[in-house]
Amino acid sequence: MIKVVLLGAGNVGTHLFRALMAAENISLLQWYNRSSTALQEGEEKVETTTAIDELVEADLYLLSVSDAHLATLSEALGERQGLVAHTAGSIPMELLAQHKNHGVFYPLQTFSKQKAVDFQQIPLCLEANTENNLALLEQVASALGGPIHFIDSSQRKALHIAAVFVNNFVNHLYTVGAQLCEEHQVPFSVLQPLIAETADKIKTLPPQQAQTGPAVRGDQLVLNKHLNQLTKSTQKELYSLISAAIQQHG
Amino acid sequence: MIKVVLLGAGNVGTHLFRALMAAENISLLQWYNRSSTALQEGEEKVETTTAIDELVEADLYLLSVSDAHLATLSEALGERQGLVAHTAGSIPMELLAQHKNHGVFYPLQTFSKQKAVDFQQIPLCLEANTENNLALLEQVASALGGPIHFIDSSQRKALHIAAVFVNNFVNHLYTVGAQLCEEHQVPFSVLQPLIAETADKIKTLPPQQAQTGPAVRGDQLVLNKHLNQLTKSTQKELYSLISAAIQQHG
Repeated sequence: MIKVVLLGAGNVGTHLFRALMAAENISLLQWYNRSSTALQEGEEKVETTTAIDELVEADLYLLSVSDAHLATLSEALGERQGLVAHTAGSIPMELLAQHKNHGVFYPLQTFSKQKAVDFQQIPLCLEANTENNLALLEQVASALGGPIHFIDSSQRKALHIAAVFVNNFVNHLYTVGAQLCEEHQVPFSVLQPLIAETADKIKTLPPQQAQTGPAVRGDQLVLNKHLNQLTKSTQKELYSLISAAIQQHG
Repeated sequence: MIKVVLLGAGNVGTHLFRALMAAENISLLQWYNRSSTALQEGEEKVETTTAIDELVEADLYLLSVSDAHLATLSEALGERQGLVAHTAGSIPMELLAQHKNHGVFYPLQTFSKQKAVDFQQIPLCLEANTENNLALLEQVASALGGPIHFIDSSQRKALHIAAVFVNNFVNHLYTVGAQLCEEHQVPFSVLQPLIAETADKIKTLPPQQAQTGPAVRGDQLVLNKHLNQLTKSTQKELYSLISAAIQQHG
């Protein structure tokens, strides 16, 4: 059994709590958070605490707090024998270098408290300062069941930006689609099969090859027509810039 | 049995051919295309032709050719008793007004010849100049099995632009994600569960509510860090503009 202490009860922390509780070979000893409210879900299942100095010895301290609080929390942890790892996409492993054993355990997924996630579908990006520590993270990742990738801090930084493009930015384009539907009294659900197929296609076809539409065809007639039809300046700007980017890079 | 003549053997035409052949209550009488090469797939299954004047009488002439060729083809069809309908997203029904019976049969999906599609998942957007004609299109759509929407030409125009945003533009953001992965020797497959979940989430959550990330959080620190890390000017421009759009509209 790998003994784990989980710190943080935000979106990622809460989903990790559920997954760690459900995982075989993992013994979750404690769940820490600054405020007790977010810990409520765990109260009858595990020891919860809001006091750093109550934390027990563990094989792994998993720090799942916001980027801004990570340094303070790492400092507050003090000297620990166990491995100290954070779950943040954009923070280098070196932030935890004060700990003899340190690493990163980054689940590359979008988490909403409202929506259940299946950790077997979540890639875990791992990094550690020694091979032994990496092996420990790999064991924990295996217990959660998702695909495992060994990703160093510079790669993870790039992945985090890529995730902004394919998740945050893509979602905003869905929002524009929903706005256009709403303006013309069309249910947004009409677009959902197209959205699903667009995401599905790139499982088998590299996105550059999957590109279709007026921009990649160089169909200036349709491009101009669309630009004239759009009424909001932000939508027009997005339309122009992304079309130009497609014509440049496919 | 509804008698159909299909005109066009591009991406959409070819997928429609397969779906119409497989559908109950539909009798596909002929498949027309300007050149015979694209018709090869149909040769042993249905009468194929490259000559407009060989077309027989049918209940429905389905025109699935590129926007640029639609007017010429409609003209060449001459006077027909049957309903003449096109499958184009951005062309108003009125283009076919010379025909006594005319309409639109627009499958809202992205088609690649390489990838099979399931018409039961494809919304069909219908419009016709009379109720009887609309009823006929509805029968054909029902035979294909997908969700049916009654969409007028102005709504369809908006839908077509929305489709560019949620399909063409989204796919380009996948391309940027793939480029960032490639630059840092990370397999693109690491991003695929995130892409799938992003598309899945908006089935139950309106996209504006599903928005996450540094832009909507107003996390200027991460935004600046990302902008500094991006090396290509087009990627920087996309990053700035879409982040600003998110901050404006959520």
